Amino acid sequence: MAIVQPVDERRCLTGPNARLIGKPGGLRELTTPALVLDLEAFEQNIKAHQHQLNLHGLRARPHAKSHKCAEIARKQIAAGAVGVCTASLHEAEAMLAQGIDNILITSPVVGAGKLKRLMQLLERGAEVAVVVDDQEYAASMAAAAHRSGHVLDVLIDLDLGMGRTGVSNIESALQLVDVACATEGISYRGLQAYSGRVQHITEFAERDHVYTGQLRFLSALIAALDKRGLKPAIVSGGGTGTLALDCREGILTEHQAGSYIFMDVEYGAVTLRASDADPVFATSLFLHSTVISKNVRGQVTTDAGLKSFATDGPLPRVSAGAPVGTAYSFFGDEHGCLTFRTPTDSLPLGSIVAFVTPHCDPTINLHDYLHVVRHDTIVDIWQIVGRGVL
Amino acid sequence: MAIVQPVDERRCLTGPNARLIGKPGGLRELTTPALVLDLEAFEQNIKAHQHQLNLHGLRARPHAKSHKCAEIARKQIAAGAVGVCTASLHEAEAMLAQGIDNILITSPVVGAGKLKRLMQLLERGAEVAVVVDDQEYAASMAAAAHRSGHVLDVLIDLDLGMGRTGVSNIESALQLVDVACATEGISYRGLQAYSGRVQHITEFAERDHVYTGQLRFLSALIAALDKRGLKPAIVSGGGTGTLALDCREGILTEHQAGSYIFMDVEYGAVTLRASDADPVFATSLFLHSTVISKNVRGQVTTDAGLKSFATDGPLPRVSAGAPVGTAYSFFGDEHGCLTFRTPTDSLPLGSIVAFVTPHCDPTINLHDYLHVVRHDTIVDIWQIVGRGVL
Repeated sequence: MAIVQPVDERRCLTGPNARLIGKPGGLRELTTPALVLDLEAFEQNIKAHQHQLNLHGLRARPHAKSHKCAEIARKQIAAGAVGVCTASLHEAEAMLAQGIDNILITSPVVGAGKLKRLMQLLERGAEVAVVVDDQEYAASMAAAAHRSGHVLDVLIDLDLGMGRTGVSNIESALQLVDVACATEGISYRGLQAYSGRVQHITEFAERDHVYTGQLRFLSALIAALDKRGLKPAIVSGGGTGTLALDCREGILTEHQAGSYIFMDVEYGAVTLRASDADPVFATSLFLHSTVISKNVRGQVTTDAGLKSFATDGPLPRVSAGAPVGTAYSFFGDEHGCLTFRTPTDSLPLGSIVAFVTPHCDPTINLHDYLHVVRHDTIVDIWQIVGRGVL
Repeated sequence: MAIVQPVDERRCLTGPNARLIGKPGGLRELTTPALVLDLEAFEQNIKAHQHQLNLHGLRARPHAKSHKCAEIARKQIAAGAVGVCTASLHEAEAMLAQGIDNILITSPVVGAGKLKRLMQLLERGAEVAVVVDDQEYAASMAAAAHRSGHVLDVLIDLDLGMGRTGVSNIESALQLVDVACATEGISYRGLQAYSGRVQHITEFAERDHVYTGQLRFLSALIAALDKRGLKPAIVSGGGTGTLALDCREGILTEHQAGSYIFMDVEYGAVTLRASDADPVFATSLFLHSTVISKNVRGQVTTDAGLKSFATDGPLPRVSAGAPVGTAYSFFGDEHGCLTFRTPTDSLPLGSIVAFVTPHCDPTINLHDYLHVVRHDTIVDIWQIVGRGVL
């Protein structure tokens, strides 16, 4: 048996394409499947998003679940964001390890082992807030924080209609606020009100109708809290799909949109703008893939399959490198099938085909590296430090 | 901004549950979502599989795409396997870095950057073979190997009906063998004949019928090669679904089955045994998940969603920790929904629910750690070194 090789550290941080950074024509030499970030489109998206929130007096707290990448979080904060959201404790730990220290964890953190890890984040001086949706659990979380000498900021998680997490009626929400206010170890900071499914309703008017209906619960709760002298300092929520609506409604104080930086196939199909004054977000995230087999008429096989693209949403869409009308379908873990509109078409082995990614969050989660490109040159490679689940 | 923290090395290798190794009751303290391997079932599967192949004079070359884990490859080799298969160059590199040095890469390795990395594997003294399915590409691969002073072992990849990779007619296969024999830099070692979709045909008789039909091409090709004095030294193929058939047919010389070690929901539905003499493989791979919200009647939310389970096949199946008849559905990246048969049922926050995993290969790919359990004690944590795509 061969001797165990030490892992090359540079390789670990930037992957097998590190040698291509700054190399003219390096993009064509990329080993694939590789995620490619168009830096110009990405930077424009960040700028336009922050500008829109500034105009409406909303703070930005972009959701890092979309990118799981500390470099991107840093750029969002540099543009004006107050911090980031993470979907899990794992993502929060990954962000904090890279110096991103103002974090809202947008899902309840449950379990003794996880509470221990959460306390370790506080010990490291991070500004971390979490959401709660259960009185009894809020009390036991408070006890854990109190024992370790900390006070944990909490937002009350509201269920706007998904039935996933959160409380869905005013009475339960008020009781939770009372617990959060009365219990040592936790500090009531406000509310979280996120509506997931509504983000992807393609027609603006329909999304508007459904979402404003959902927001009535939030407005009523804020009014009830105000009456008790418990007006929330923070009301956090929103996504890329409701950005224009949240700007118009003015109920949220901070906004959690994440996908606007990338614009995947899903969001490409959604009408986002309420008016011509709203920004246009451009697709900045692509997957490059290589043609590896071409023995069947009318189709070729690429090296990007179930391990390269999320499979929960729409299919990847070819954006460059193949004839117009070429369709992608999954062909197993490591393979995709490209079917040509004209059966006599083909592509040579080694051809690079670029795709707009399906649902960007779980797609990013499959990868370790973002290859950052400006004017067809790879200018950097960013590690996706928050991928994984544990 | 906080100072960037150094990554704890032990943590990196074994994850946040490292402190639970050997701890009585540690399994109940696992932070989740976490993959759990039942070592007893796993060891029995490895033993039974090797015994079956030994009986029929077939060499084992288990597919590491199912586990991507060097410890498992080592156990398979210790039991008698000649080496492993990997689905990609990336997996091969990960295996070799851990000392697994006899590898067949079962998909064409295409692209200049990848060929360079392939040559680096040879330079490190690995016994690596690859498949080819294109004459022109075989010649350019041979040239690359020759330039770097190596001879690359190749198998001719045959298409048994999927249309994904491989050649599908005898003439093309013979021409490829001729190229492989006549070209400096590559060495013709034999054939690969893998049939993917047929593995999951649930009824044994139907699978038998379809597969034996597909094997006619392989038998005819071997006869034609034999006539030319080019009988393949290696005929590699097969999966868990065709194991009994491959043992009966006696055409393959080495067998690539991978999933038999874990037995996921997909293979749980497939009749694998030709007779009572064939082994029974037991489910050894589970995902443990925690209940994190319980505010909706008749359902609870767990912390295992799209980032924990592959979504290309059947749904995860509850195996323990919830009432009989509880059904799982996806609830976003980080969440799953458990729906109870009796709407008055519920589960306390923090409850651990165990699942049989859907399609094991892409499920394993989502995780970094396997928590290895014997008699309810975590005895080790193995890293999934080959996950990822680049």
